[in-house]
Amino acid sequence: MATKPGIPKGTRDFSPVEMAKRNYIFDTIRGVYALYGFQQIETPAMENLSTLMGKYGEEGDKLLFKILNSGNFLSGIAPEELGEANTNKLAARLCEKGLRYDLTVPFARYVVQHRDELTMPFKRYQIQPVWRADRPQKGRYREFYQCDADVVGSDSLLNEVELMQIVDTVFTQFGIRVCIKLNNRKILTGIAEMIGAADKIVDITVAIDKLDKIGLDNVNAELKAGGLSDEAVARLQPIISLSGTNKEKLAVMKDVLAESETGLKGIAECEFVLDTLSALGLRNAMELDLTLARGLNYYTGCIFEVKALDVEIGSITGGGRYDNLTGIFGMPGVSGVGISFGADRIFDVLNQLDLYPKETVTGTELLFVNFGAAEAAYCLPVMAQARQAGVRCEIYPDSAKMKKQMSYANAKAVPFVAIVGENEMNEGKVTLKNMATGEQSLLTPDEMINIIKK
Amino acid sequence: MATKPGIPKGTRDFSPVEMAKRNYIFDTIRGVYALYGFQQIETPAMENLSTLMGKYGEEGDKLLFKILNSGNFLSGIAPEELGEANTNKLAARLCEKGLRYDLTVPFARYVVQHRDELTMPFKRYQIQPVWRADRPQKGRYREFYQCDADVVGSDSLLNEVELMQIVDTVFTQFGIRVCIKLNNRKILTGIAEMIGAADKIVDITVAIDKLDKIGLDNVNAELKAGGLSDEAVARLQPIISLSGTNKEKLAVMKDVLAESETGLKGIAECEFVLDTLSALGLRNAMELDLTLARGLNYYTGCIFEVKALDVEIGSITGGGRYDNLTGIFGMPGVSGVGISFGADRIFDVLNQLDLYPKETVTGTELLFVNFGAAEAAYCLPVMAQARQAGVRCEIYPDSAKMKKQMSYANAKAVPFVAIVGENEMNEGKVTLKNMATGEQSLLTPDEMINIIKK
Repeated sequence: MATKPGIPKGTRDFSPVEMAKRNYIFDTIRGVYALYGFQQIETPAMENLSTLMGKYGEEGDKLLFKILNSGNFLSGIAPEELGEANTNKLAARLCEKGLRYDLTVPFARYVVQHRDELTMPFKRYQIQPVWRADRPQKGRYREFYQCDADVVGSDSLLNEVELMQIVDTVFTQFGIRVCIKLNNRKILTGIAEMIGAADKIVDITVAIDKLDKIGLDNVNAELKAGGLSDEAVARLQPIISLSGTNKEKLAVMKDVLAESETGLKGIAECEFVLDTLSALGLRNAMELDLTLARGLNYYTGCIFEVKALDVEIGSITGGGRYDNLTGIFGMPGVSGVGISFGADRIFDVLNQLDLYPKETVTGTELLFVNFGAAEAAYCLPVMAQARQAGVRCEIYPDSAKMKKQMSYANAKAVPFVAIVGENEMNEGKVTLKNMATGEQSLLTPDEMINIIKK
Repeated sequence: MATKPGIPKGTRDFSPVEMAKRNYIFDTIRGVYALYGFQQIETPAMENLSTLMGKYGEEGDKLLFKILNSGNFLSGIAPEELGEANTNKLAARLCEKGLRYDLTVPFARYVVQHRDELTMPFKRYQIQPVWRADRPQKGRYREFYQCDADVVGSDSLLNEVELMQIVDTVFTQFGIRVCIKLNNRKILTGIAEMIGAADKIVDITVAIDKLDKIGLDNVNAELKAGGLSDEAVARLQPIISLSGTNKEKLAVMKDVLAESETGLKGIAECEFVLDTLSALGLRNAMELDLTLARGLNYYTGCIFEVKALDVEIGSITGGGRYDNLTGIFGMPGVSGVGISFGADRIFDVLNQLDLYPKETVTGTELLFVNFGAAEAAYCLPVMAQARQAGVRCEIYPDSAKMKKQMSYANAKAVPFVAIVGENEMNEGKVTLKNMATGEQSLLTPDEMINIIKK
């Protein structure tokens, strides 16, 4: 036999059981998005490279999967271009299209392209795979699904509130206990202003973000090594060591940032979101966390991240407010806020905590054993009746040995098996075997259906 | 403003309304597949080119979208290779991966790769996009979904029977009246044998297939032009002009093919499928149609095709039996039979016949008008309660002019609007406006929910 065929590294096949679990995840998220008035769109897997390039930084450009032009892709390319050392430049000549790298840029493109058809605010969700030529490693794939929801065309903080309610509802439905962390880019900007190092905001937040991992002393050392004065680092101390309830934290921060208009605006935004949500009674905790520093290149207001409480894993959902989604495509002034559920990590968490509902796997409920042509002919109308009643059933297609047919039932984890021989045919009945208990009963088709459906 | 961004030709964005309709199609097909014991799998968008190349003929190889290798894709390629005229050969050096062209080859690869985990017969379905660098035209796209179901590892004709039941059930659920056409590759082989032109089977079937379009005389002329003797063409006449019921057609064919063992086998197969199905009482007609000649390169037994009766459009579903799915990957002896629903054409048929159920579009059911911060704060817990009861609702995020908010409700086709001002807040109620009738009533939240849910 030839070598077993494989699939590209970093990609996956999904088996029936995995698919059932993934569908459970997607259907749950989809259902909650719909409950909040979000509408689904889909965009093509391939976008023009001109849409994608330059949107994810230099590193991102390299991680785009580019699609070779069809036909004579060399036509019009001079020999000296082929010899060039800059393969990125050549790639752009050989390829016009690339696979989408996330759902945000295609969404921005969608909004601009369809602006005349859209009513703002536009609340869309999108659940589709994305592709990145990242080095594959545990939990990181080259093809993976994103589940994004965004509201664009509204500055209202009620959108932030709704997104947090969505997060809370989704994880409650999953049965995963989480902590929802909240920060605000404006607070971080205020902090940088306050210590007179507005250009160092990224360094500062990166250092603060390491607090859990490396401890306060090392954070301070890193801040100094990054060029902050002793005085600046000293002024940061109450922020780095911030603790207590959200109200207490906000009170401290109001003091610390009293002179930063931007900082105070960020605090007011967080306060509104936290107060409004606390009146609504979320089932999961929300925590103001100033060390949360994701997406600083594009988030401009609230930033969120969700951590699972009972499993050691990175963030399983995240998002934030951005001010200028579509500016890159020449349509300024469209503010938005969005979240993205990490389906792959949620899949792992549900597995580890064994939280999938039993009915997730919608496999065959009833297998008819096949004893031959006459018996099969008897079974077919009974099966049609069962399906009419919503019973997922099948007949073993060949009249193989009983043992083989029962192995098949076991391998597919079929809970009920129907056995029809001469006796059953004469009586107009079937023998139903409960595979869990081993119990067998001679029943009419109606009785059989009732037992399976209950 | 910069040029509006676009998408690659032959690809599409799907708007919320289109998505809702597509989900209705996919969910219906998915539900019926599950009812017959089929299980869903997914495979990666990218396959190794070695898996895809050579599986779709020379033309197919050209239509594969190939993905440029990441990093330095020129490394190891000699300058003279770059100058070569054969771009296909160079493409294979620049690209290791390609986008899947159909779901059949990835499925064959899946079966071979996972053979040790699978229990045969394996009944799988798969609903995913495929990509082809075809010239785009009306109804033909470069990215489109296929909805395939196959049973592999069983020769039993009960599988053919079940697939026809699935087709019948799906189109009954859609409300599309169809004719299911059946043929058998073995009958076609028998015909070719009978007239002593076994090598001309493709020419013959292509010519016969044109009967509807060009008429009998032209078919005969084409057959002669193709090298058939007058005698051979004369012997084909009863077949080309075959008519009557399925039983009558089969009777004629039994005579005509009396000396072809293969031909008689094909007739017996069709007879079994038709007889078994007629005992089950399909809701759509099945018709033996010898001019049906699809997939002759790979189908070896029954061949099916579905035509919509009330819309002029090509085949909307098709499939057949193949003998050696996985031989290309070194695993011989795996027979199978499958069908594929044409989602894009079904989408068009449902649109033309206006058959989408009203509840297909699961948009917002209830919009809360936003009169300001206090009113919004009052609305939020009412909305939480409504969502708890399954009502899809949202609040207009900004306290914009009433007219703007009502336009938004109209644009999203929201059936109910809740209006909350001082009066409602004082009474603990909401004013519910039915957007279709214009009727307004002052209600408690519970009353409001009951009206919307009924």
